Amino acid sequence: MKLQVAIDRVDIPRAEAIIDQIADYADIIEIGTSLTKEYGLRALAPVCERLAARPVAGRQAVLLGDIKTCDEGKYEFDLGFACGFAYLTVMGSSSLGTLEVCAASAAAHGGVMMIDLLECDEERIERISGFPDAVYCLHTSIDSGATADPVGQVRAFKQRFPQIRRIGIAGGIKPDQLSGLAAEGVDIVIMGSAITKAEHIGDACRASAEACHSA
Amino acid sequence: MKLQVAIDRVDIPRAEAIIDQIADYADIIEIGTSLTKEYGLRALAPVCERLAARPVAGRQAVLLGDIKTCDEGKYEFDLGFACGFAYLTVMGSSSLGTLEVCAASAAAHGGVMMIDLLECDEERIERISGFPDAVYCLHTSIDSGATADPVGQVRAFKQRFPQIRRIGIAGGIKPDQLSGLAAEGVDIVIMGSAITKAEHIGDACRASAEACHSA
Repeated sequence: MKLQVAIDRVDIPRAEAIIDQIADYADIIEIGTSLTKEYGLRALAPVCERLAARPVAGRQAVLLGDIKTCDEGKYEFDLGFACGFAYLTVMGSSSLGTLEVCAASAAAHGGVMMIDLLECDEERIERISGFPDAVYCLHTSIDSGATADPVGQVRAFKQRFPQIRRIGIAGGIKPDQLSGLAAEGVDIVIMGSAITKAEHIGDACRASAEACHSA
Repeated sequence: MKLQVAIDRVDIPRAEAIIDQIADYADIIEIGTSLTKEYGLRALAPVCERLAARPVAGRQAVLLGDIKTCDEGKYEFDLGFACGFAYLTVMGSSSLGTLEVCAASAAAHGGVMMIDLLECDEERIERISGFPDAVYCLHTSIDSGATADPVGQVRAFKQRFPQIRRIGIAGGIKPDQLSGLAAEGVDIVIMGSAITKAEHIGDACRASAEACHSA
């Protein structure tokens, strides 16, 4: 199971300082929506370049831009991959046409489309479940509070949508839930402030990464 | 009926050049999602300041940031209003909690929340129809092509949702459809390339503005 660490609500120098502390342990580093909307993708391209130029000591993390595309999928995804992101997000509530052009852009750039299932009901998930290379991310809205039982949520999702292979989960995930999520075959678990607000960010990231990778 | 002109897929100097040509005629100038995502809200604050400092010759246009908020509504809306935008957009597909915090932010800043109804079905629109100060924007996805019959679309919407007072419409609107839309009581009509890609941008904007304001 991959560990994705989300960086949010900080400025770019602080984001780079956090990246330096987690890049040897995390698999994916998320530049959160708050940063993409405040600073824009073009200003974040140097952050991608800086990470790519880093000497590899442990794992070499890649960057995800949480751009939450809703429309104009080709424009946003082509731009995001050109800026150096390896993963980009699109809303599951977008039109099927938008998801299709995002999937095509991801394939053309060797990148990955993560579909954010925020507020998607079962009927919609069924309708958009035909992208085998995409990661489908279960996501409880920050404005609605954290997920109470992520392991149970993943188990129910897998039963309801057996055709979906790659599952991600975000929303207040705690370190003690990681082994249960890995046992369910989750592809990517997303953690935020549990790591980025820890007293020792690098230690917190390493501990969670070990739990993700050993399970 | 107000005319909103959307500026998309240009850099900031070009956006400012377009603004200079339309600011005496348009009611609302939209900084499109492509700009907010490429350059970020902070880089657009000077664009807001520059427009606000402009000597008023005709109408004094205000700016809308098409930020398409999906989550973290308070953070994004507070930031957007602080940067100088008068209108901000939130997706109708967001959680009710997100819409509520966006509405509260708009009220606190004397701004307006525009709800983008992209991909919202009737059940969802019914559920989110309780924001009397918001503008509800009928919106056909760019990735799905333009609206064929916007006047008929507005008429059907009003019959189905009589509780919604303020209606906006976007998606390939043509100048010859403006009088029909005004007759239906539309609050805001959104035009893009029909004005911003015209040979004489100012003339095209003035002509459409006259059609909007005289109807």
